[in-house]
This record gives sequence, C-alpha cells and structure tokens, in this order.
Amino acid sequence: MSQHSAPAPGAGPGTEAERLARAALTRLIEPGSVLGTTAVRVWGAVRALQILSGVDTPGPDERQELSLVLAGEGTPLTERTWTRSLEGWAARTASLAPERDLESLGRLGGGLLVPGDAAWPPGVEDLGPSAPVALWYRGGGPVPRQESTLAVVGSRDATAYGQSVTRTLASGAAARGLTVMSGGAYGIDAMAHRAALASGTGTPPTAAVMAGGLDRYYPAGHEDLLREVSGRGVLLSEMPPGTSPTRHRFLQRNRLIAALSGAVLVVEARWRSGAQNTAGHALGLGREVGVVPGPVTSPQSAGCHRLLRESPAVVVTDLEEALGLMPGGLGTGPEPGSGRGPGVPSAAGSGTESPDARIHDHLTVEELLVYEALPLRSPVPVDRLCAVAGLGPGTVMGTLKKLQRQSLAEQHASGWRRGPVSHG
Amino acid sequence: MSQHSAPAPGAGPGTEAERLARAALTRLIEPGSVLGTTAVRVWGAVRALQILSGVDTPGPDERQELSLVLAGEGTPLTERTWTRSLEGWAARTASLAPERDLESLGRLGGGLLVPGDAAWPPGVEDLGPSAPVALWYRGGGPVPRQESTLAVVGSRDATAYGQSVTRTLASGAAARGLTVMSGGAYGIDAMAHRAALASGTGTPPTAAVMAGGLDRYYPAGHEDLLREVSGRGVLLSEMPPGTSPTRHRFLQRNRLIAALSGAVLVVEARWRSGAQNTAGHALGLGREVGVVPGPVTSPQSAGCHRLLRESPAVVVTDLEEALGLMPGGLGTGPEPGSGRGPGVPSAAGSGTESPDARIHDHLTVEELLVYEALPLRSPVPVDRLCAVAGLGPGTVMGTLKKLQRQSLAEQHASGWRRGPVSHG
Repeated sequence: MSQHSAPAPGAGPGTEAERLARAALTRLIEPGSVLGTTAVRVWGAVRALQILSGVDTPGPDERQELSLVLAGEGTPLTERTWTRSLEGWAARTASLAPERDLESLGRLGGGLLVPGDAAWPPGVEDLGPSAPVALWYRGGGPVPRQESTLAVVGSRDATAYGQSVTRTLASGAAARGLTVMSGGAYGIDAMAHRAALASGTGTPPTAAVMAGGLDRYYPAGHEDLLREVSGRGVLLSEMPPGTSPTRHRFLQRNRLIAALSGAVLVVEARWRSGAQNTAGHALGLGREVGVVPGPVTSPQSAGCHRLLRESPAVVVTDLEEALGLMPGGLGTGPEPGSGRGPGVPSAAGSGTESPDARIHDHLTVEELLVYEALPLRSPVPVDRLCAVAGLGPGTVMGTLKKLQRQSLAEQHASGWRRGPVSHG
Repeated sequence: MSQHSAPAPGAGPGTEAERLARAALTRLIEPGSVLGTTAVRVWGAVRALQILSGVDTPGPDERQELSLVLAGEGTPLTERTWTRSLEGWAARTASLAPERDLESLGRLGGGLLVPGDAAWPPGVEDLGPSAPVALWYRGGGPVPRQESTLAVVGSRDATAYGQSVTRTLASGAAARGLTVMSGGAYGIDAMAHRAALASGTGTPPTAAVMAGGLDRYYPAGHEDLLREVSGRGVLLSEMPPGTSPTRHRFLQRNRLIAALSGAVLVVEARWRSGAQNTAGHALGLGREVGVVPGPVTSPQSAGCHRLLRESPAVVVTDLEEALGLMPGGLGTGPEPGSGRGPGVPSAAGSGTESPDARIHDHLTVEELLVYEALPLRSPVPVDRLCAVAGLGPGTVMGTLKKLQRQSLAEQHASGWRRGPVSHG
C-alpha cells in the first residue's frame, strides 16, 4: 500500500467518520455511477472521499486495485474516464457539507442509512456495483421489508381507468399488510400512495422513493400527500438535501424502487416511460413484474402491452394476481369468504357468467348431447331425442334421469323438456 | 378379411359412392367423434357407412383392425362403447338421405368437399383422428388457403371497444389480402365478417364456419350478413343441411376454425367462452394465437387476459402485430409510407410521445446530465453547469457544443440555456 492509502484511524465501517464520508459521497457521486461506488467499495468510504474530492491522489496500488475490480465488472477504467470523472467530482467538492446535510435532515425527522445499519435494506445490494453508497430517509415509518413491499408505478397522466384500478389494487394490497411503494409522482404513483394511506395496515403502509433531496417535497403539488407519506410511512432517496431531481436521477431512482420491492406492478405506462424503466430494472434483479392491461386504443397502456409482448412480465387483472407476484406466493389462495379477494370488482368473477354456461361445464358429452336435444317448451318423446342426439334409447333414458336429478330435464306426460335450472 | 368386409366395386376413394357415403356419414356421426371418424379411416367411407348404419356387421378382422388403431390413438374401444355407439347411429339411420342433401345444397350454390378433392383444405388433417369426414360448403368464393387465413373470433356481447378494435384489425388484415375467418355469430364475429367484406381484397375476403347445416342462415338475425358472406366468400360446415347448431356442435365447429386458419386472433372473450375454446384448439394445433387486451374491469376481456396468463398466446395491439401471427411472418415489416400499418390508430404510434421524450433517448448519460443542468430561460455560466451536472469544465464545454449542434443548447452572452428543439 502506498503512503497515500492509509486511512485515518477510526475511519472503517460503522464509525462516525464512515457515516460522514458516505453523507458527503451522496453529493459527490451521481446515482448509479459504477466508478464512484466501486471506488467506495474498494477503498472504503473515507479514503474514497479523500481521493474523489481531490484532497489526495490514489497511490499506484490503489489505482491498480480499482482498475482490476472495474475490469472484473466489465467496465475497464481508461485514463480519460478517470481524468474526466475527477474533473466532475472536483466541480462539486466546494459544495460538500455532510454535517450540515445530516443536521438538516435530522431536524426534519430523517437521517442517513449506511450499509451495516440495522435498517439498511438488504435488497439494494442486489444492485451490485451500482448499489447506493447510502440512503437518506425522512419519516415516521420504518424502512419497509422488501419481501412485503409491492411497488405500484405508472403514468403521470393516468386515465380514470388507471386511477381506478390503482386504487383497487393498492388499497387491497395495503389492507393485506403490504407496503405500497411508489415514486410520489402525479397519476398512478399518487393514487397508489393515497389508497395505501387510506386502507393500509402494514408497517409502513406506504413508502416513496424520491429522485431529489428530501428537504423539500417534489412535485410541489404533492406537498400534502408527501407530508402524509413521511408522517405515516417513509421517504427515501440517495440524494442529499438540496439536490434537485433531474431526468437522470429519476431513471436511477427507478432502480431503487425495483431493488427495494418484492415485486413491481405497472398499472399504466406509455410506450416510452419511467414505469417501463422500473420494470426493466426489476426484471434484471429477478423481481416479478406484473402488468395491468388496458384498451389498446389508450396510449397510457401501450407501454404495458409492450412489456407483455417483449418481457417476461405477467398480466395482472385483480388483487389475488397482484399478490401472487410477491415472493413466497403471498395471496395465492383466495381470501376466506370471498370469491377472489376483498373489494376487487374482478372481471373474472362468477357474477359475469350466465348460470347456463356454468351448468354446461359440468356435463359429460353424452349429457350435453341429450340436454341440447331437449326442447325448452313442448316436451318430446324419447325416440325423437335419440334421433336428435344421435344416441340409443338406453343411453338417452339413463342420461335423462341424471339430468332430471340436476333439474336440467323435466318429464311430462308427452315426453321430456328442459328443467327449471337451465332457463331460470 | 371376412366376407363382410368386401367393399362394393367402385366404392374406393374418389368415387361417387365414396362421396355419397361421406355425405351420409356427416349426418350419422357427431362432429369430433373419434370412433366414427376412425371407422371411416380404417374401413373406408362406404364400408363404414354399411356398418355404422346397421346394414351390415363388421367381421372379426375389421373389429380387430379398428380396435388396434383406436388403442394406438389412446382411445381403446370397449364393448360397451361400441354397443352404445351402434345404438346412437341406428337412431339416425332412418333420416339418411345423402342424395337429397347433395341436391339440396347444390341448388343453394354449394356442395360437399371430401378428402382428395382439389379444394379439400389440408389444414383440417392436422386434427388427426377428429378430422371431419367431409365438409359442406356454400358460396361463390373458394375455400380459403390456410396460410392466408386469419381467424378473428370473440364475444357475442362485444363492447363498443371490442367492435371498434375488430373493425380496425379485420379491415386491415382483409385489405392486405388475408381471408378473415369467423363463426358468423353476433358481436365480434359479425364485425369481423363485415369489416372484411367492406375492405377485403383476398380470395375470398371472408369465410364463416357454421355449427349447423348450411341450408339456412344462423343466427336468423344474420341472414343478410351470411348471405353476403356466402355471396362473396364462403360458408363451411361439417353438418349436413337441416341440422341444427347445438352447443356440442358449436364447440366442435371451433376446432374447424382453428384448423382452417393460419392463426387465431381473440378480440374479446369472457372468462368462459367459445373464443377461448377456439384459441385452445389453435394452440393445440400449433397455430399462433393473438389476444387483444382490454380493461380489466370489462368481463368481455377477462377471457383474453386469462389466455395471456395461462397460455402461450401473445398480446396483439395493432395490425402489424396481428399480421405477425401469420405463418411466414406476414406483416413483420412496416407498411411503406406509414408508421405502423394502414389506418390503424396505434397506441404505440409516435404521435403519442412528446418530442422531448424522444430527444432524451438519443443522448449519452453525459449529454443528459448537461442537458438537464441547462435552464429553460435565463442562461447560466459554464462553471454553474459543472457544479450541477457534476462534470468538469472540459467535458461540459465539449458536451454543450454537441447539444448546440442538435439545437438542444443555445449560447448567449451570459452563458448557456436550452435550445429551441427541447421546448418547441
């Protein structure tokens, strides 16, 4: 090890210096920067901060170790990348103030989570080299457990249909104790949070992952909603206070939603959309992705249908199917005392079928042939039924008796006709 | 061979006696009866008719040969089944009048197709033991070629949405020269036929497979439509004139639609439905099945979503995707001079996206970082952009020049801001 690489005493994992360094690094490194996060993993947070902020330069051993790890991850480090990255970090060094950031979020009822903390969500480690160096949180609720967290995401310009389906599925999932996670945006996200707050029993009922700093609520129009989410749930972000959400950060935020959840449900999504981006991250992480279909004439469902055509995402039409996405097969059985789950107006429910159609399903082919041969009104003799059904008299008589026991056939003086069940 | 099994001279394949026997057998055997069709295959049509109609009894060799073939097909013949089947056939023997049936359909501009006829559709042979013994036809159009036939099927009680999507897809497919095949029923079927008649260029533009005899139009409310289908297209059925469509025959009719088509498109289908039955047959025959999704709140789409969850059927949202179902990859390329196909209001079309979203897709991460850092109105100096983007001045300047060439950035005396493309 070169002389440059000796970390200050007490700077290792779990120390206050480490926490402070990671707080600073959340401002220095853009989310998802593999070079930045790998430097932290290889050198440790305190040493990485020294180097990335230009306080010190890496020794040859340190450079080599970093290069080897990056090459092993398939992202070899070129001199040009290193120089340009250093330039970028240097441009931000003047703004570093981790104590102030920690204090600022502390005053707002939040703080910083770093790897090793009891509340550090293990799911984000599935992101590998692009795992966040730390997570800022704000709110009264605990960080949700991945296994019981369902992400519900979708279009900002949701339709009434998308809003309605989101309300049904998110309140159902929240009422079953799941945490409903989303991005706090307009449209589907907002409805998911609201529905979870209204009927949630989970700890927390809902959580929002933000693309910018947690000192302010974004979008501004959601101040009340996000205040409520942070009150009863929790807000999370890898960005320090004061940072604004950019498009790049929105896209990187989506990887966190995927990593923090047990499964992702996309309710509405345009052909190109952030929700599809979240779904892509989730599939890459091995999370189940469910997709709510919609009219093919609705641009807000085009991204959903695209996912169904081009990815292993599965169709979700009701609460049970949504719960079935969760690891461990949550909700694979029907809710006691209900057809297919609580409060969900399922398109697949038994109420949508005529009694006739259901009766037929239980009949054998022979029974069906005789049943179909029976007139609705005027009874006919057995030989007539034989000719129509194409069965012998013995078979027809035996079958008629069976149908009679199910009230599907009725015997009269002049012969047989259909029974009361079949047209009642 | 026993003395019973010697066929009359001139009773082999291709003879008039054979054609007459098959005409009679269509009345004797219920559609899809493996025992009946296997007897015809093993003994020949003329001899099978003698035995099944009770004119003669099979010799020991004949019984054994039939038993062996049936056992090989996984449906061993028991004495009880044989006796009961003979009873059933006997009940219908008195009504056999093949000459009358042939004459009757001939007068209506139709006739009978038997295996070996030039127009016999080879696709039905994919049904194996349950292939029809003959097919009745009626109409001016030829029997369509399987490779250029798309079946479009769905709910009788179609919604306005289902009707509209059917019209779009069926007219598009018909305009591209495909034959649109369906079942002549209310709802989706009727719309599919109508749309194909209106814009079809294929030979024939449309074809209907009926569950009953072709001497009358069923349902009666479709007399005008079916008359037009038989005028410019063709009606097909395995049932002889005078027979009524029963539920069993509807289900068996569906296997013919699947076998006669290159692919099946289900537009709307209830949780339990005939369209799903057709789709199941098609999948079993190795035909591609496409499914149009719809609102999860619509019972008419529940069967479509069920197919998507439980079968290899694929989502279809527009004409190109529908054409892509066809064997040989018909329609996999876009129509010249159009985005995604003629006349289809595709949800995925470029018109649904803001120009902004499309611009972003072509930017590198660095360009995106700088672009996001640019203010919409008041220009800012480069060092400010460096701090916001987290990039060095060299990188930012180089990137700004690239963005400027794409009109995404604009240089002013006081610095840089977004260019005209990004918010125009």
